[in-house]
Amino acid sequence: MTNTTQLDQLCINTLRTLSIDAVQKAQSGHPGTPMGAAPIAYCLWQRFLRYDPENPNWPNRDRFVLSSGHASMLLYSLLFLSGVKATSQSDDGDGLAVKLDDIKHFRQAGSHCTGHPEYGRTSGVETTTGPLGQGTATSVGMAIAERWMAASYNRSEHHLFEHNVYALCGDGDMMEGISSEAASLAGHLKLANLCWIYDQNHVSIEGSTRISFTEDVAARFLSYGWQVTHVEDANDLDLLTRGYNIFLDTHDRPTLIIVQSHIGYGSPTKQDSKEAHGEALGAEEARLTKAFYGWNPDTQFHVPDGVAEHFRKHFGYRGTRLRITWEAQFSTYRKQYPELAEQIDRMQRRELPEGWDSVLPTFPADAKGLSTREASGKVMNAIAEKMPWLIGGAADLAPSTKTYLNFAHAGDFQSPNSTGSYHGRNLHYGVREHAMGAISNGLSLSGLRPYSASFLVFTDYCRGALRLSAMMKLPVISIWTHDSINLGEDGPTHQPVEQLASLRAMPGMIVLRPADANEVVEAWRVIMQITDCPVCLVLSRQALATLDRTCYAPASGVAHGAYVLADSPDHKPDVLLLGTGSEVALCLSAYEQLKKEKINARVISLPSWELFEKQSQVYQDSVLPPQISARVAVEAASSFGWERYIGIGGSVIGLDCYGLSAPMETVAKHFGFDVAHIVAAAKKQMTCHVSR
Amino acid sequence: MTNTTQLDQLCINTLRTLSIDAVQKAQSGHPGTPMGAAPIAYCLWQRFLRYDPENPNWPNRDRFVLSSGHASMLLYSLLFLSGVKATSQSDDGDGLAVKLDDIKHFRQAGSHCTGHPEYGRTSGVETTTGPLGQGTATSVGMAIAERWMAASYNRSEHHLFEHNVYALCGDGDMMEGISSEAASLAGHLKLANLCWIYDQNHVSIEGSTRISFTEDVAARFLSYGWQVTHVEDANDLDLLTRGYNIFLDTHDRPTLIIVQSHIGYGSPTKQDSKEAHGEALGAEEARLTKAFYGWNPDTQFHVPDGVAEHFRKHFGYRGTRLRITWEAQFSTYRKQYPELAEQIDRMQRRELPEGWDSVLPTFPADAKGLSTREASGKVMNAIAEKMPWLIGGAADLAPSTKTYLNFAHAGDFQSPNSTGSYHGRNLHYGVREHAMGAISNGLSLSGLRPYSASFLVFTDYCRGALRLSAMMKLPVISIWTHDSINLGEDGPTHQPVEQLASLRAMPGMIVLRPADANEVVEAWRVIMQITDCPVCLVLSRQALATLDRTCYAPASGVAHGAYVLADSPDHKPDVLLLGTGSEVALCLSAYEQLKKEKINARVISLPSWELFEKQSQVYQDSVLPPQISARVAVEAASSFGWERYIGIGGSVIGLDCYGLSAPMETVAKHFGFDVAHIVAAAKKQMTCHVSR
Repeated sequence: MTNTTQLDQLCINTLRTLSIDAVQKAQSGHPGTPMGAAPIAYCLWQRFLRYDPENPNWPNRDRFVLSSGHASMLLYSLLFLSGVKATSQSDDGDGLAVKLDDIKHFRQAGSHCTGHPEYGRTSGVETTTGPLGQGTATSVGMAIAERWMAASYNRSEHHLFEHNVYALCGDGDMMEGISSEAASLAGHLKLANLCWIYDQNHVSIEGSTRISFTEDVAARFLSYGWQVTHVEDANDLDLLTRGYNIFLDTHDRPTLIIVQSHIGYGSPTKQDSKEAHGEALGAEEARLTKAFYGWNPDTQFHVPDGVAEHFRKHFGYRGTRLRITWEAQFSTYRKQYPELAEQIDRMQRRELPEGWDSVLPTFPADAKGLSTREASGKVMNAIAEKMPWLIGGAADLAPSTKTYLNFAHAGDFQSPNSTGSYHGRNLHYGVREHAMGAISNGLSLSGLRPYSASFLVFTDYCRGALRLSAMMKLPVISIWTHDSINLGEDGPTHQPVEQLASLRAMPGMIVLRPADANEVVEAWRVIMQITDCPVCLVLSRQALATLDRTCYAPASGVAHGAYVLADSPDHKPDVLLLGTGSEVALCLSAYEQLKKEKINARVISLPSWELFEKQSQVYQDSVLPPQISARVAVEAASSFGWERYIGIGGSVIGLDCYGLSAPMETVAKHFGFDVAHIVAAAKKQMTCHVSR
Repeated sequence: MTNTTQLDQLCINTLRTLSIDAVQKAQSGHPGTPMGAAPIAYCLWQRFLRYDPENPNWPNRDRFVLSSGHASMLLYSLLFLSGVKATSQSDDGDGLAVKLDDIKHFRQAGSHCTGHPEYGRTSGVETTTGPLGQGTATSVGMAIAERWMAASYNRSEHHLFEHNVYALCGDGDMMEGISSEAASLAGHLKLANLCWIYDQNHVSIEGSTRISFTEDVAARFLSYGWQVTHVEDANDLDLLTRGYNIFLDTHDRPTLIIVQSHIGYGSPTKQDSKEAHGEALGAEEARLTKAFYGWNPDTQFHVPDGVAEHFRKHFGYRGTRLRITWEAQFSTYRKQYPELAEQIDRMQRRELPEGWDSVLPTFPADAKGLSTREASGKVMNAIAEKMPWLIGGAADLAPSTKTYLNFAHAGDFQSPNSTGSYHGRNLHYGVREHAMGAISNGLSLSGLRPYSASFLVFTDYCRGALRLSAMMKLPVISIWTHDSINLGEDGPTHQPVEQLASLRAMPGMIVLRPADANEVVEAWRVIMQITDCPVCLVLSRQALATLDRTCYAPASGVAHGAYVLADSPDHKPDVLLLGTGSEVALCLSAYEQLKKEKINARVISLPSWELFEKQSQVYQDSVLPPQISARVAVEAASSFGWERYIGIGGSVIGLDCYGLSAPMETVAKHFGFDVAHIVAAAKKQMTCHVSR
């Protein structure tokens, strides 16, 4: 280690021993990767990362993503030693994002040092990681965001956005399919601001990676169009520095730095073994390891003099200087380009532009109607034209999902070439749903308002990423069309059944399934105002009648999640008909039929269970009066969960099996989605239930 | 096309025009890929595929997987022209798997020509495809199965198993992460019997693949350790033949044949465009295309004389001859190795070996107990020792999930080397959950009884494959441990919440969450006897008391999905306590507490909703008496769906948010999983509900 000073080594070993001690005290955690990868992170932070510990939200900071989320103690040690400040967005009470006391209470309730890094819980954590592959894929979204912001807001004299995105990842990340998807796309997009550092320690939970992972990773990334370089020894700061410089000198593609490291470095019996991965070293082994580092084996959580100062002196001052310069520049920019500056401000605060909803369409009543995917495409285009930072795309299904932004100058997001530029608003994800989900998270974490799209059935391909959107409370919009068996001929592989229930079961996710074009408008009105959770907008392939709102309640009820669409004249119905999406019109037809038979029904449109459950009990009871237990729910999907609204004795017209390949009308009839069935179910309900 | 005879060309064009006409008549479907890839499939079937149309279930047949499932008409045309017979496993009434009438009713109810190929619906369909990447990944499972069966059953004089697995795939398959995972593993395992044919037509739904997919696929597969060869023109049977021969001559790795083709080949205005992908050509375009093929534009569904005969003469006779020879060989083998032959028979019939359950353990009552993952590991090992074709593994979590088969000679499945052989029973999937799911499907489709394993939260990474297990009714066993917030310190990213509800919502999936070691035994007893659906076995990380069955009902009640574990002496309880898994013991403690307070409760262990719902109404009512509406459900998971058993007024002790990183006891207490809460909820229920 030619240019490793004693102080460098002291800093690196402090990162290591803090990690060892935290895991040892918690008797839980992953010491091996922090021990092996400490110099990789130290070199990056100390010599390269442009990041101001005084302001971890500075928009032009470099991003450091710890995709190996289990190595969380490495990140916490870095945040602590660098003195990264807490921000108001997190729940850190005072001063520092991570205090020594947090480290001493690693993995305990109340500590900011949680088992895996949690965005929003600990300042300086750029994204929640742990499920492998999510960090790497999310970092691609952050890199796209930077390219887009640079192309959109930089002016020749003002380079407001020029930051890099680093992701530290491991063997597990490399094996996950989501990383392959994201890396392939990053190569295609020539994201030169993206650097993955692959901590290759050749050990995973089952032992040596030789038992399952023998591909040539360097060759694979070259095939994606990446720059690839090797660092033969993670302990060699010279080689690491050379690796990072190769990244900085590469301007036409992303870079992968493959670093050979030793899991559990320094542990006399556990180094290079799976035993170093996921459990405490043990008191005696920890002592021996410290001795190897030249540490006093009797100390715990020891931070030698000069270490924190060294971090601040180089890493900290550099970042603070850069941030202050940037702010001065931004205030000049603000004077020169007030409108652009306002966009940047709003984006960072998750505010909408003035007048964003001034152009929302209203759809006239129309029995023929249009599909909700078509209506959504029109509404989204109208909003997007007013809101430049609404950007997104589909997993090779833009034409089918109607999610292409087609107004003038929307453009395609591509590395500048004949078909697009980094200023483009339309992303082409290719057939890569899982990466699309994680990239959307990365876009949102950088302040953009992303949307993504595919068929509803393919939520199954990206739940890992959707779950993190919800856990991080990111206002990511995902658009899922072809929302039921009514897609028809493509058959059961493409007909969603259980996906609605599965999404509704996901905490912190709002699901919206509008019933007609005007409910789509209202759904978008709701969605755009959400700042703290993701939304799944679920849309039909087939045309749905645009309801005559002079006969039925206005669509603004969508904001309440559920509303009474049609009712008995005395508001004392005998039976409740509940529907969502395409089944609402069926309920209305049943209602009209029942009316002819002198039966008083109420039709409730229930586009969003989650929004409905946020309403007051009084409102909820006004829609679903507790004393009326004759209830029929109609939804062309799994009945799972509907007992919440209809009770044990209620009736669900749903399907608890897979669909059928046939024309839509045949399929709907086959599964009993017709007026006659609803009417019969309503009558049966009325004979079973005597209103309390 | 040097060696393409007129008859070859006629056959190829028949495949094309049948596809064109079927899509045109249905006004729905995907003509472009069948038109472009017809010669690829023709060359393979006619010259190479070892497959007997008289017996599409012949165990040693080559497999042809159409991973580009949207090109289903290509497969149906092949099955029709080859005269593949219907089998009893499918619902084909008579004779042929696909009749011309089926083709004429493509995508209509009742036709065997469904939108995408459906296993079990149409003989000759080796696996259900359509969701991209599933076919390719499943083919890896089939190739593993062949290697395992060859290593296990072939004897020097009898090569019972030596077949190849071909998968035809497209750009979309190549982009999906699941394919990357599967290809990396296939390369690691050196599956020389596996051949993917990549129909590279450079067009996907959004247009040219240049907009999102510009990686060097050949280099990527070389990095995985595959053989790669190119065919520059899909219409050149010579080049295709050379490609297939390269595969057959490669004995140390899988092969990728990259074939340049033209989507919609021959269509004057739609060739090479996305318009050829997913919609009918249109009547006039179809006429012009036929003219280009030298076809009479006025004919529809035309099969020229000699075409079917040509298929039968080469493809058919070859396969029948091989199958008859094989059967003769197998009857000699049966005499020489009756036990092995019996295994093969049972495997093919999905029967269990005699005495498979003779060694199931019983666990004595023990307040300390053991985790259900540990109990499961013991039970599974006991069964696996009796049942050689029970094989599987984990996604790099065998030690954590306790799924390693550790008895003598179980061994690791590896290409023969120092650490294992193709006879090994333990698969090392690496961190590749989605591929693991699809590979398990492939193993099952070949007759093996596969199990797979990971943490419950990572079902999110492989739902695409789990759904296909369920749709295909495959008895795949998947084992999910670390089943709740009780995993503790790893925190919310690893703590499942909504996964139980999401799996229960999936049609055709059985979910089992046993409460103690003896319920684990009974769960395995149930699982092993299932032949027609997948099972998710959900297990705890933490130790659970082994219940004293002299005080409580026997664990054999697991077979009914739910059973009364403890009851009031008069069997007229005032309140019902329902629990699953680790929460059952909590319910029992609450029951004992309530008993002290003279309150009559009943505890119901409900390990499987799906099994319970298969029971008679009488049994269901005996467990959950309808007149008792005071009900408390306790499950450390999303409350979603529980109203099915407790009604609108019931109480669920669950959690509808993400978890917490802290020691298990702290987490459980934080979310209210303790006796006091259950007792309080029970009392509150009793005051709210007057039994009817």
